[in-house]
Order: sequence, then C-alpha cells, then structure tokens
Amino acid sequence: MRRAERLRERRIIEIIQEHLDQMPRMPVPFGDDVSACELAGGNLVVLKTDMLVDKTDVPKCMSLWQAARKAIVMNISDFAAKGVKPIAMLVSLGLPKNLTEKDIEEIGEGLNAGAREYGAYVIGGDTGESSDLVVAISLFGMAKKNKLMLRRGAESGDIVAVTGVFGKTSAGLKILVENLETPEEIKKALVEAVLMPHARLKEGLALCETKAVSAAIDSSDGLAWSLHEIARASEVGISIESLPIARETERFAVVNKLDAAALVLHGGEEYELVLTVKPKLWRKAEKAVEKTGGKLLRIGKVTTEKSVLLETAGKRIPILREGYEHFKN
Amino acid sequence: MRRAERLRERRIIEIIQEHLDQMPRMPVPFGDDVSACELAGGNLVVLKTDMLVDKTDVPKCMSLWQAARKAIVMNISDFAAKGVKPIAMLVSLGLPKNLTEKDIEEIGEGLNAGAREYGAYVIGGDTGESSDLVVAISLFGMAKKNKLMLRRGAESGDIVAVTGVFGKTSAGLKILVENLETPEEIKKALVEAVLMPHARLKEGLALCETKAVSAAIDSSDGLAWSLHEIARASEVGISIESLPIARETERFAVVNKLDAAALVLHGGEEYELVLTVKPKLWRKAEKAVEKTGGKLLRIGKVTTEKSVLLETAGKRIPILREGYEHFKN
Repeated sequence: MRRAERLRERRIIEIIQEHLDQMPRMPVPFGDDVSACELAGGNLVVLKTDMLVDKTDVPKCMSLWQAARKAIVMNISDFAAKGVKPIAMLVSLGLPKNLTEKDIEEIGEGLNAGAREYGAYVIGGDTGESSDLVVAISLFGMAKKNKLMLRRGAESGDIVAVTGVFGKTSAGLKILVENLETPEEIKKALVEAVLMPHARLKEGLALCETKAVSAAIDSSDGLAWSLHEIARASEVGISIESLPIARETERFAVVNKLDAAALVLHGGEEYELVLTVKPKLWRKAEKAVEKTGGKLLRIGKVTTEKSVLLETAGKRIPILREGYEHFKN
Repeated sequence: MRRAERLRERRIIEIIQEHLDQMPRMPVPFGDDVSACELAGGNLVVLKTDMLVDKTDVPKCMSLWQAARKAIVMNISDFAAKGVKPIAMLVSLGLPKNLTEKDIEEIGEGLNAGAREYGAYVIGGDTGESSDLVVAISLFGMAKKNKLMLRRGAESGDIVAVTGVFGKTSAGLKILVENLETPEEIKKALVEAVLMPHARLKEGLALCETKAVSAAIDSSDGLAWSLHEIARASEVGISIESLPIARETERFAVVNKLDAAALVLHGGEEYELVLTVKPKLWRKAEKAVEKTGGKLLRIGKVTTEKSVLLETAGKRIPILREGYEHFKN
C-alpha cells in the first residue's frame, strides 16, 4: 500500500475511534495489533480483523490462491506478535461478478491452506458481490491476560530485536510492480517474499512463554513504523545500531542504485516480529526462538530519549515514521 | 439483493465450504446464522461476520450513518435468532477514495449508534481503500451450548411463529428503487423499514430463556427462504396457515396491483425472527415476547411432509425457496 494511503488510513481510524464509546475495562488498548474481551479467571477472548483488497494489497502476478492465503497470514501475524494461538476464523468475501467457479475454488483452497498452515480452521463466513476482491478475516483465539505481549511495556535498556531480516518484500514489489532489474539468482527469493509471506507464529508463541518480551508488534506496516509504534505506546525512545538487511536486498540495492536502508526501514507487507526484550532474559528468548527453528536478531536498544534513531558510523540519523527521503542518495 | 445474486451467493458458499477442513467438534453446524467454538464448561464463543457492500445493500437515499448502522443490525439480527447477547465487535472498513472526513465521521457515528443500541461496543478494526463502501462486521458474544437456538430442531406439531409482520421492506424498496406509487400515509412506515431496520434482540434473548423454541433463524433472506432453511435443517415440512402481512403492505399491494403474498414471502433485508415453538410451551414463549414489548405471531405448523406450503382458502400452494412467480396474477 502506498504511503499516502497508509497515512490516510491512520487518520480514518482516528476519526472513527473518536466517535466510539469505549468499552469499560478493555484489556488491550484500542489501536494495538489485536482486540480482546475479558472472561472470568483472567482469560481473554482475542479478536482480530484485517481486510485484503486486491487493488491495494494484491500485485497483479499474485494468484487468487496466494491472495486468499495472504489475507489469513496478515491476520495470523498480528496474533503472532501478541503471542496468541489462533483457533478459528470467519471469512467475509466480496467477490467481483466476473469470477468463475474455478476462481472461487482457488480462493477456498487458499483460505484453507492459510488457516491449516497455522493450525486454525475457517468455521464460517459470508459472501456478497463487490467491485474489488475483498477478503476480510475475523480471527479468534484465547489468551491469558497477564501473558499477552502488547505494544506498550518497553523500558529503557531493553534490547530491540527482530525475528528475521528485512527488505525482501520492498525489493520484490519493485521487481513486480516497477519492473526493476534483478540478478536471476536473487529474484526468486525477493518475489517469493511478496507472494508467499509467512507469519512468525511459532516464534511469537515461544517468545510469549519466556516472559522475556516487554513489548511487541508485527512489521506489516514497515520496520520504521513498528519501531515508532513501540516507542509511542511505551513512551520510550529507540536506538538502532544494526539494520537487519537481507543479503538479497543489499545486492538488489547495489544493482539498482537504491538505498538499502530505505528498503529495510520503509517497506511493509513484511511479517516479521519487532520486539523489546529484557536484557537479563535475552539468552532465554534467543534460545526459545532457536528451538522453533528461527533466529532472534539484536538490532538496537530502548532509550529514554523520545526519538527513534539509527546510529551508524558515529552518526545519529532520525528514522522517520513514514517516507524514506532521508535515506535517499 | 437481487435473487439471482442470492442464489449465486449460496453456490459460492458451497464451493468454499467444500474446500475447507472442518474443525473437530463444531458446536454449531456450518451454514447456521452464527459460528461458535466450545470452551470449558459448555461455554461457547459465538462469532458472526456479515459484510455490507453499498452497491448491493445500500439504496441511494440511505445515508452513510444509516448504512453503517445497518451493517451492525444485520449481524445483531443473527445473534438475536440464536438467543445470543452481543458483547463486542470489530469493523473492517473498505472506503472509496472520494469520501470526506465528514463522511468518515458519519460512518463512525453510525457504527457507534448501532452497537450501543444493542448494548455492544466496537473495540477494534481495520480500514483500507476500496472501490465500493464495504463494512464488514465481526461480532462476538458468549452462550451456553445447551441453550443456543439452531436452525435444526423443529419437530412435527411445533408451532411456526414470527416476531412481526412482513412485507414492509420489499414495498419500501419498490418505492425507493423502482419509484412505485404510494399513498402518503403509509409511505413513511415502508421507507423507514428499509432505512432504519431493527434487530429483534430483546425478543430473541427472552425466547431463548424460555427453552420453548425448537428451531430459529432470522428473516434477512426473506420469509420463504427462512422457512425452507428450518425445514431443510430440521428435516421437516412446514404448513403456513396465516401470512403475517403488514397493513401498509396490503394497502401498497392494492394500489400497485401487486401480490401482497409475494411481498411478504420473498422480500428480504427484513430482520424478524422465524421460529418453531413447542406447543406445550407456546403460552410461555408468547408471554416472554410480550414482556419485551413485542408480539409473537402464530403463522403455521411443522409437518412431517418434506414441503413448505401455504394453506389458504382450502388450497395448498407450494412456497418456493426463491422467486415469487407462483404468486403473481
């Protein structure tokens, strides 16, 4: 999604929110990755809805199967960031008139594949006609109130970490949408990152068990945005010391004379987790992620300053919440 | 929504369903008004999603406030039919680019009004750009497994009942969409039925408490469709003895030389409850609804024949699942 639209989206959410009566005793603040209601015994019903619309979220070469699966991955990723196991989901489908029965089958298969990949089931839904292909997922899971990882909670001195390298989807989108040049040996990895995203569910669930995480968010709106969100919600600053650049993205940036840092920070549609970890429990967190087959990368630290900075080669460069002009050559 | 589209919608749901792995121990069968997951102690998490798309669900003269509110009423009505109290909901909004901040405010107010009218809260959501206005609601509530009213369960001899008269929305839509003639003194009631629908939540909750109801559904797809759904899910037949015709619809039909029975049976977007009631508990059910300020109307009985019939003036006329050609002059 283009940045102007993303900004507009934030403003729209603000306006809507201003007109809503707030539910008493909301266990998760409005605007976090998921919503929740409290049951007896500190149990939470956790809910998430996120809508995929083909014209903004689906590049032309993505199949219907991949689009349907992606709609689910988007939602699972938010559960992963909170450490919540998805149980079941409903699907609201808006379908353009010209879709064939074969197309609908492909969508059904993609939905089922996405749900089963993460151990969840599609248990209901609704469909209607619309101009765009619209796939709105409502995801449901259960959690313990005192275990949920929120955007708020980061403290000065905590380690900032991510579950993987960044920049593959932004490079992949430039290949798919803008037809930029790519050496064949890295093309597949970059395009695959766009077409077949994966949610870090195993990592999120394992990290939640360690109680080492003080704040967490997924990176679907870009690494820079995620860092700013943790900083805002936790009322802290963040200093990034080492950018988690994908090897393929570094190469792609050189070939196309692009700023690799911009691709890493201001991408989006990338489903890694961005976390802050208590230093004393770092090793425990690292091990928990390793056990799932993943890797926890330390990229910086939480500070008391109210800013998000990149500290590199002795310079301190502000990381903007939006836009990557700052890093352009 | 036009009937051809409604039929296509059913086929689409069938195709999707064929491709889904079924969750083990589903407490509510796929295709009922709501979906559910079982927690410990016979408690159910009840979920519903239904999507409003302006081009099929919103007549031109309906305001954004009314459209947003209607999206919620549609979902609440399904909870009402199952006897489930709504607690909270998420909203996925697809918004056309040309909407102003004032428009968004109106949508926010309409959402809040709809939710609060039924004692629920909007606790989260998501927004994106789309060609149509899309309002997808994910509704959440809790229920006891042994109390939920399902589409299946009707038995031969049970009384078929509804919570109100029918035909106002189909007449109202003919006024709004086809510009049909209407005497002024009935116009307001017919148009209001379309623009400001109400869900029979109080009635549904009260009926659920009586344990008098053997099967239930809401009438959003039309009275005929609802009767067929109960008959299909319960493996019974239904015989209608008295059509619940709204006074205004009767008048409207005379003025425009239309078949009032068709307006009553094959309307839709009408949010009454259609129920079957155990004869011994009829009085209890009737009283429970009266206590909420409503009225339970007896319209027929459940039979062992596998057909849905209208018995009128000694004749037995099949009620079609779709289409009203049969009742045309």
